[in-house]
Amino acid sequence: MVERRKPIRIKDAIELVMEWKCRGEIEWVSIDECDDRFLGEDICADHDVPPFNRSPYDGFAIRSKDTYLANQSNPIQFEIIDEIGAGQVSFKNIGPFQAIRIMTGAAIPTGADCVIMLELVKEIQINHKNYISIKRKLKPGENISFQGEDAKQGQTLIEKGMMINPGVKALLATFGYDKVPVIRKPVVGVIATGTELLKVNEPLVPGKIRNSNGYMVESQILRSGAIYKRYENQVDEIESLLSVVKQALDECDLVITTGGVSVGDYDLLPHIYEKLGAKVLFNKIAMRPGSVTTVANCKGKLLYGLSGNPSACYVGFELYVRPIIRYWLYSQKPYLRKAKARLQTDFPKANPFNRFVRSKLTYEGDRCLVEPVGLDKSNVVTSIAWADCLMVLPGSTRGYSKDDLVDILLIDDQIGSEEPWIEIERSTKL
Amino acid sequence: MVERRKPIRIKDAIELVMEWKCRGEIEWVSIDECDDRFLGEDICADHDVPPFNRSPYDGFAIRSKDTYLANQSNPIQFEIIDEIGAGQVSFKNIGPFQAIRIMTGAAIPTGADCVIMLELVKEIQINHKNYISIKRKLKPGENISFQGEDAKQGQTLIEKGMMINPGVKALLATFGYDKVPVIRKPVVGVIATGTELLKVNEPLVPGKIRNSNGYMVESQILRSGAIYKRYENQVDEIESLLSVVKQALDECDLVITTGGVSVGDYDLLPHIYEKLGAKVLFNKIAMRPGSVTTVANCKGKLLYGLSGNPSACYVGFELYVRPIIRYWLYSQKPYLRKAKARLQTDFPKANPFNRFVRSKLTYEGDRCLVEPVGLDKSNVVTSIAWADCLMVLPGSTRGYSKDDLVDILLIDDQIGSEEPWIEIERSTKL
Repeated sequence: MVERRKPIRIKDAIELVMEWKCRGEIEWVSIDECDDRFLGEDICADHDVPPFNRSPYDGFAIRSKDTYLANQSNPIQFEIIDEIGAGQVSFKNIGPFQAIRIMTGAAIPTGADCVIMLELVKEIQINHKNYISIKRKLKPGENISFQGEDAKQGQTLIEKGMMINPGVKALLATFGYDKVPVIRKPVVGVIATGTELLKVNEPLVPGKIRNSNGYMVESQILRSGAIYKRYENQVDEIESLLSVVKQALDECDLVITTGGVSVGDYDLLPHIYEKLGAKVLFNKIAMRPGSVTTVANCKGKLLYGLSGNPSACYVGFELYVRPIIRYWLYSQKPYLRKAKARLQTDFPKANPFNRFVRSKLTYEGDRCLVEPVGLDKSNVVTSIAWADCLMVLPGSTRGYSKDDLVDILLIDDQIGSEEPWIEIERSTKL
Repeated sequence: MVERRKPIRIKDAIELVMEWKCRGEIEWVSIDECDDRFLGEDICADHDVPPFNRSPYDGFAIRSKDTYLANQSNPIQFEIIDEIGAGQVSFKNIGPFQAIRIMTGAAIPTGADCVIMLELVKEIQINHKNYISIKRKLKPGENISFQGEDAKQGQTLIEKGMMINPGVKALLATFGYDKVPVIRKPVVGVIATGTELLKVNEPLVPGKIRNSNGYMVESQILRSGAIYKRYENQVDEIESLLSVVKQALDECDLVITTGGVSVGDYDLLPHIYEKLGAKVLFNKIAMRPGSVTTVANCKGKLLYGLSGNPSACYVGFELYVRPIIRYWLYSQKPYLRKAKARLQTDFPKANPFNRFVRSKLTYEGDRCLVEPVGLDKSNVVTSIAWADCLMVLPGSTRGYSKDDLVDILLIDDQIGSEEPWIEIERSTKL
């Protein structure tokens, strides 16, 4: 007799998985290896930025009150008493009608309260002394970048859990982080199962196909910010599979198998969960593709049984594995980023299931448009390559039409969402 | 006398740079190292996918014509004559009222033209023989994934220049690419200049700041798909700087300096270009920040003089360096992806210059909204970390208001645009 499984809601599946979420620990890496890692501590300013009042331009530091009477018909002359290159400081004090030549980025000398740009002065010599002539009035503080205006000492600039992008890296350098605290990447074990699977370098033989799911999932793991550990493809034989799953659970932070989770005679994963004494959180979800996505927990570690169908496997990963990885990395937005878009094609046929359709987002004016890419059968690999989002079509007794407003989940995005996409009660067919 | 530079349009600057674009050569890497690389050859299907007619479900392969009379009150029995696991093939031929048990993914046996799902049959035994009983009619081809329906042999599936994402990697595995042809990453030399610069691990001293631009640019280089080669920070001394720039031009595919490109006494890059005999393509652009962005060409190699101001440096990279790198990688969309969004704040002050404002994109319904992040002074580093787009505010005699529709350029996006953002003639102040 075939086992009849009871599908649960996406919402409930996510909740059951997230009960087992945990946070990773900090490790320190060189600033040269920190790109795309997730910050393990807040970045606080240990000094003001800028660290001193400085000039944003090449020009002359002067006292603004000396320019009070300057205008086009009344140029005022200032004696040049010193010159400050960037990185240098002047020990001279600016007195009345004195000027110090100053370079971009250099510290404003004592006594000065403004800078006039190089382009706005005329340099002259009188009695072998150098002067500038100024024809406009300056305000106190004009052309000065004030100490601390970018960041005040002690201020938290970036919170932990943020992915390190070029701007974050610049901040790390500014505050002297030659070693950067990042969250250790979780290690995700990957075991592809199925007697039909060939290795990538094996020639095709009748009835067999090459393992592509394993490579796809590994790439998804990397994109999520984790690392993978690959185990040998497994034929549908229970003892060897059990032994590899045990080994992976010992060696990894979480484990993914692909294939073998359905109800057929060769679907061994249900038996593996039993033999492991793992608690199966769910083994059927009211969604397409990916309804057979199974998650179990074995001694606190998550063991994912993703479908052997490429698209089901792909969607199962993005909805249920990615948030666990991103939460581990302290992301405050572990779920796929959500948006809405106007559907560009008709889906006239009613479908009772919540569908995740591999799609492409385009922008027209300030509007988001979405259309499916290629076929949307769960075994079609090519469309995964072209998709940059998943369009969500909730189960419904009617179809969908062009210009309907639909939810989309962005899969290339690095920002994420605080909350997952979940179905509205009435749209769920269990 | 201060040099008066003539600013050129963004449009013209991009054209001048892109005249020197070139393509990288192919190198072969292991499929395990191909993530985020750019494909060096089209991926063609070397076999049909699926490679044979196969079953998408667990069930029984039968002849549809034998089910012609089946219905709820007239169950029809089929004798089970064989069983095919995934990866196996059956050498039996299905005759009238015979069935073969078939697993998901297995090849359809000879004689059968449809599959009935396991859940829809009743298994029975008669005289020690196994039968299934069927109560519904099936159509020819029902529940069969046909050979070549995903991809036909010889079909081009992915064109070169596409970035390898999880879906592309799955295709590579499917077609047996244990080695993958990718474009060699260009090597970009990075030289930070300025006597004021400290190394990241040096303590602050009066008048000096740590080099953050170099690290930021290196991170931008990685995000664009290239690799960097770092040279020692350079003080403002012409002979040593010249020698390092020469070395970098010898060793790298293109070279970036930060700082020293303005018209001040310590701005040495203009002198370096002269001594190198480099052709300066432009040294002033009608844009803010980044107006001093300079690009020269030395014996066919591009030499970028980016500003020492972090934001100017950042924008200069994204507008003028990124497309050269992406074109090198065979991307068909080398420029930043463009969209439009509704401005969320007022910019009441008129500004004659085309401004690129570090901003954040949010989605509301199917609409894109944009607002600036933090201050927008060109020396503010913190806002770069938070930005995911650049809002473009063309130079104008009036300001901008909330709800105005503005152009945005997405900086975290991996898709890009075929055409760059360019100013409309009337909006350009030169």
